[in-house]
Amino acid sequence: MVASPHGEQDPHPHAGDPVFDLHVGGKMETRSTVALTGRDELSMAYTPGVARVCEAIAADPSLTRYYTWVPNTVAIVTDGTAVLGLGDIGPAAAMPVMEGKAVLFKQFGGVDGVPICLDTTDVEEIIETVARLAPSFGGINLEDISAPRCFEIEDRLKERLSIPVFHDDQHGTAVVALAALKNALTLTGRDPATTRVVISGAGAAGVAVARILLEAGVRDLAVLDRQGVLNSDRSDLTPVKLALAQDTADRFGRTGKLADVMDGADVYIGVSGGTVPEDVVALMADDAVIFGLANPNTEVHPDLAHRYARVVATGRSDFPNQINNVLAFPGIFRGAFDVHATAITEGMKLAAADALAGLVGEDLAEDLIVPSPFDPRVGPAVAEAVADAARRDGVARK
Amino acid sequence: MVASPHGEQDPHPHAGDPVFDLHVGGKMETRSTVALTGRDELSMAYTPGVARVCEAIAADPSLTRYYTWVPNTVAIVTDGTAVLGLGDIGPAAAMPVMEGKAVLFKQFGGVDGVPICLDTTDVEEIIETVARLAPSFGGINLEDISAPRCFEIEDRLKERLSIPVFHDDQHGTAVVALAALKNALTLTGRDPATTRVVISGAGAAGVAVARILLEAGVRDLAVLDRQGVLNSDRSDLTPVKLALAQDTADRFGRTGKLADVMDGADVYIGVSGGTVPEDVVALMADDAVIFGLANPNTEVHPDLAHRYARVVATGRSDFPNQINNVLAFPGIFRGAFDVHATAITEGMKLAAADALAGLVGEDLAEDLIVPSPFDPRVGPAVAEAVADAARRDGVARK
Repeated sequence: MVASPHGEQDPHPHAGDPVFDLHVGGKMETRSTVALTGRDELSMAYTPGVARVCEAIAADPSLTRYYTWVPNTVAIVTDGTAVLGLGDIGPAAAMPVMEGKAVLFKQFGGVDGVPICLDTTDVEEIIETVARLAPSFGGINLEDISAPRCFEIEDRLKERLSIPVFHDDQHGTAVVALAALKNALTLTGRDPATTRVVISGAGAAGVAVARILLEAGVRDLAVLDRQGVLNSDRSDLTPVKLALAQDTADRFGRTGKLADVMDGADVYIGVSGGTVPEDVVALMADDAVIFGLANPNTEVHPDLAHRYARVVATGRSDFPNQINNVLAFPGIFRGAFDVHATAITEGMKLAAADALAGLVGEDLAEDLIVPSPFDPRVGPAVAEAVADAARRDGVARK
Repeated sequence: MVASPHGEQDPHPHAGDPVFDLHVGGKMETRSTVALTGRDELSMAYTPGVARVCEAIAADPSLTRYYTWVPNTVAIVTDGTAVLGLGDIGPAAAMPVMEGKAVLFKQFGGVDGVPICLDTTDVEEIIETVARLAPSFGGINLEDISAPRCFEIEDRLKERLSIPVFHDDQHGTAVVALAALKNALTLTGRDPATTRVVISGAGAAGVAVARILLEAGVRDLAVLDRQGVLNSDRSDLTPVKLALAQDTADRFGRTGKLADVMDGADVYIGVSGGTVPEDVVALMADDAVIFGLANPNTEVHPDLAHRYARVVATGRSDFPNQINNVLAFPGIFRGAFDVHATAITEGMKLAAADALAGLVGEDLAEDLIVPSPFDPRVGPAVAEAVADAARRDGVARK
């Protein structure tokens, strides 16, 4: 039943289904943080008193940091083109995911999230719209925008705006995957510089995971799309894929299909949604590491993966080692906002991954390579590491 | 002191000033309306459970009404060009007013308001931006956008969108002024059709007050800008002013300056910010009605006005009869949202004014022509009248 603010009750079409029942009326609200109990408070929070605050900000716009909600507020922006595993379902249908994201931002990071579902899929229009909204927000979280448009949108907004811009499907996933991989390599006694990694999937998540692994010291990396290994001999690559090919498979001359690069590979990371046949999984090195991150159907089912691998992770909450980007984005924005950062740098992402990996500590085991999202240390630890990195990288404003 | 979500404390530059102290950290937040206490709730409110809700909405977008916060959410949109009496102070400095508006929307209407301060003053860009945001909101409240741009922006967004679009500086003020005038005319024994009204100011509020008075049956109306009475003989009028001249002063051949039309006038409504000299006030008819609505400096100070008028109102909270649009906008949107209205019609505004005027009831007196904003009957009464009018006007979807 829908409880309206006036106490009316509406039946809803999926009543009795617990997931739909939970969604009735949406999952969030705005609230006042000041009490308005009479004319005196009203004349301070609103006209005429508020005019003095407006005048002070007009004279010195940096005062928004003290006297508005802006510095703690993130716009969660989507065009609805790549929502979860559902694809292009449009802005209206994307809203439940964006509300969920806002709920997670608040619960795990104390960040006020505002869902913005855009009625356009045009790159220029998305960039212009977000840039015009920017004075209202302390940061921009891009969400569920399809590749390759998401790369250009993020890059150009980062250039244009002096607030954090972060595409969570790329960088949230990448940070948590790196944290998990660091612990998996520790467990299996490997050095990133000599570890052979295969990434299946060259969309938003695949590209970002590859990039952060390179920054973290992995050298022998092959990334595949549906046509096979990304390498410069291919004539069908987008600029983003071509640049990635040059930094990955080209260096070791790796070519071919999945089976070619899985032969002897130490690590498989799936962000593609495909399925890896058992005979291909069987080609991997001893003590292999398998992350099958597609949701809900992982690329390698854990039962199969465990026959050949020592460490197995998925994107699912019903198996151990869930690679869940809720471990990253709330703390990353909390840390960025705590120091009024002008951007989220590569150094801040690497610091977030280090902090996450470190939280596992002495509990590190094959079935525990990342902390639980409900571990209360996660948000603060990530935030502190990110804030410190922002200061080191020169993007902190306090 | 600023209390961050992690308990840090920042000094702020105006510490000790009660208005600035109240504004520290802003005046609002977003909050979850669902509990996320473990993996089960997380997997319902977010992935994988939320995917079923998204799929249901993709198949039938009207389900957003049940399963998202959209139908209870209003974007409070400004470009910062006409903020309070401060003028063009820009989008950053406008934010404290927009947050205040959001607080009032929630407290008096149960509506979730989201401040959107735009980094553009271009009419086409504002229209495009708001249209692209529209899937995220159940309604659009335009705020503090300067005339005459505000008229075109509102008109074109109303044509383009199938959700309520409402420029509060125009229509909120007009609704409350009409409610107050109805009661003032009752007190002074006048009929709208034979009452002579002068409106000083032809900006957003002046035009809207004139239009609603015409709809409410006032016939003899003169509207003035800084150059004098709007009439068709003038060559300097904007299209909006020319159309208004034809519907007002032209009909009775009224021309000249303020003193010319104040001679014998029954009602003066000031929304200009100017000052009316005492010798001009003295020209009005017996039992005159004077509304000096400019803030903080009313056009006719109540002490002076009472020498010549029987009923006096201002925009200020420190005198009786405050014409405060918080009496209107929360209930208007509450009523529109309760019936999922596709628009806010003239009939809905007139109904809101009637409801407001009626609430005064037997308490009607020279110093009590509108209810208090803190009268708990106001929001529900306006909402109910507006919802009924929406059904009559065929814009209700339930």
